[in-house]
Amino acid sequence: MDFEFFMPAQLIFGRGKAKCIGSYVKSIANRALIVTGKSSAKKAGYLDLVTKSLEKEGIDWALFDEVEPNPLTTTIDRGISLARKSKAEVIIGLGGGSAMDSAKCIAFGVKKEDSIANYFGTQPAGEVLPIVLITTTAGTGSEANNYAVMTNPETHVKKSLSSPDMFAKISIIDPELMLTVPKKVTASTGIDVFFHSMESYLSKRCQPISRPLSLEAMRLVVENLKGAYEHGDNIEYRERMAWANTIAGIAINLAGNCGIHGLGHPLSAYYNIAHGETLAAVSLAFLRFSIPEASDKLATIAEIFGVETKGLSKDEAAEKAIEALETFMESLALPTKISVFGVKEEDIDKLAQNAYENSIGNFKASPREITLDDARKIYRDSL
Amino acid sequence: MDFEFFMPAQLIFGRGKAKCIGSYVKSIANRALIVTGKSSAKKAGYLDLVTKSLEKEGIDWALFDEVEPNPLTTTIDRGISLARKSKAEVIIGLGGGSAMDSAKCIAFGVKKEDSIANYFGTQPAGEVLPIVLITTTAGTGSEANNYAVMTNPETHVKKSLSSPDMFAKISIIDPELMLTVPKKVTASTGIDVFFHSMESYLSKRCQPISRPLSLEAMRLVVENLKGAYEHGDNIEYRERMAWANTIAGIAINLAGNCGIHGLGHPLSAYYNIAHGETLAAVSLAFLRFSIPEASDKLATIAEIFGVETKGLSKDEAAEKAIEALETFMESLALPTKISVFGVKEEDIDKLAQNAYENSIGNFKASPREITLDDARKIYRDSL
Repeated sequence: MDFEFFMPAQLIFGRGKAKCIGSYVKSIANRALIVTGKSSAKKAGYLDLVTKSLEKEGIDWALFDEVEPNPLTTTIDRGISLARKSKAEVIIGLGGGSAMDSAKCIAFGVKKEDSIANYFGTQPAGEVLPIVLITTTAGTGSEANNYAVMTNPETHVKKSLSSPDMFAKISIIDPELMLTVPKKVTASTGIDVFFHSMESYLSKRCQPISRPLSLEAMRLVVENLKGAYEHGDNIEYRERMAWANTIAGIAINLAGNCGIHGLGHPLSAYYNIAHGETLAAVSLAFLRFSIPEASDKLATIAEIFGVETKGLSKDEAAEKAIEALETFMESLALPTKISVFGVKEEDIDKLAQNAYENSIGNFKASPREITLDDARKIYRDSL
Repeated sequence: MDFEFFMPAQLIFGRGKAKCIGSYVKSIANRALIVTGKSSAKKAGYLDLVTKSLEKEGIDWALFDEVEPNPLTTTIDRGISLARKSKAEVIIGLGGGSAMDSAKCIAFGVKKEDSIANYFGTQPAGEVLPIVLITTTAGTGSEANNYAVMTNPETHVKKSLSSPDMFAKISIIDPELMLTVPKKVTASTGIDVFFHSMESYLSKRCQPISRPLSLEAMRLVVENLKGAYEHGDNIEYRERMAWANTIAGIAINLAGNCGIHGLGHPLSAYYNIAHGETLAAVSLAFLRFSIPEASDKLATIAEIFGVETKGLSKDEAAEKAIEALETFMESLALPTKISVFGVKEEDIDKLAQNAYENSIGNFKASPREITLDDARKIYRDSL
């Protein structure tokens, strides 16, 4: 089989690494724009920690702190303006996926003339400012891939932008920053890690380097997410979830996601639901739909969940994997139905059209390819 | 635990990819120096394939075809002169580890004043010409890491040079080029892949991203090396060994090797023995020495060899792993004793001193740290 590996970001992993950010940025630039959300990174003291370290190294900084969950293209355009005005030479993303993805898009957009809303999809390499990321959740894997997901509020399109130049130059993964993540966010970001690893494993693009990483990340999530959720101040669980997140981030960078992400995005775009919750809510129906083409791999997933599969047929073992995932998600108080978001039968056609138009790549990469009609069926089965 | 991930090379993997090299080089440079060995890449037609592709894209090239097995610093210095004289803008390494490592060292040396012999060890980033590698063996993993191993003929030091800039910009891994690798070379390069994966797994520097890659690469070697050795023209075996090689290359880039490589290098330096053969000959005594600190991991390796470990103590399972490795190496006609190279009791002190002075990092990273006396003992047990 043909495949490529390309992940040029330098990942720096360890407790206490975030407070050294200035020493890493120093070798890249003298003026930074920090991109972050409206409150949590400030409240927890992480913004102070970053600015102090930058100042210690004599690096000027400006702040763009308007990023919302499911970041909007209009917000990113404002960030691009500020980056230009402040003459930023490096963009630092501090936060979860929304802040990091916004930082990537701002770095991409600074030298472009159009609104960022014109740049969905895969873009050629071009002039992109250097990107430094500090992830405060485990997480989106954004620190280890070149994807950024934005939502266009006018068209309700939630879709990714990527370019060979949109990798971070440096990413800092410091599990100490994750100790303050609230329970609900721990669950929704943690299950996102699980779906990155599971979808990159199930994907038709699964390849020899991504495969062992996908399996290891799934194992780490199954063994540690419950602990991180119930004992948020336990650094061991947080650290192992941070490993899982980064490992899964590399895996999706190589093999991509598939149908669950494709079906989840429209739910965030229309109902502004946390990304991980949308994935959880469509996952069970997607997996049951996929059994005919994915029973071998699902049987392996059952084993990761500790299910005894001896004596079971592949299809039976696959069904056990789905049941184990359902129990796991319920224990994390995650939704397993889209009706809880207020989705009704009459909304399904709109969602399926949106998903099909914007995530055809994910649908084609799924182990059992998803047609427009299949998308309708999976949403309906998820009600 | 603290760790870093950095592997910026773009790996392009697939049958038939080598003949497209011109299209990849085109975006980097207009004048290339091709670095290769004295005969095999020519005889097999790979040099023609590369030059034709370069010419098709209008890229000028010069040829340095003097690389020997265990390349000498004096040879590399001649390559550096030619690179300067031919005004090369990119260095293309075509061949096994010797050709690729020489290419890296030439790219490193072009802008330096001293002989390459002055640059052993880890060097800071500096001005290094872009490097493109085409591996014709599975192999050394050189295409996925920033190490290059050279031998100084005056001092008998065989040691590595590395720098953050010594990664290939692009590496092409085309299993079709491996179909002509002779049986003996298939065995010695293949077992090198096994030791890269095993040593990076056993190393104290084993880390969360390298660990699953090390295990996967070991599994692939155990399942496919015998087939590649006995049926050299079978592309499936060659392809899976090529995967193993690249995966192990990434793993050693992250976690490094340990004692087996440290003990093997002096044997190449003094007796000019193929790298993989030297590793095979010291491996069994090294592993028996390591059991007290590595029995858990060795038990996992026993399972990779298909040994039933149920009911065995960890130490017993570890011993079974070593026996399985011995049987595996014997089936590949690899040496399991250093006496076959002509090493005598009275040579041991010289070898141990050399290994200790030049590979202290490998000795310290070993699961059970190796002292100078331990090195003597392991060589003696390998006689």
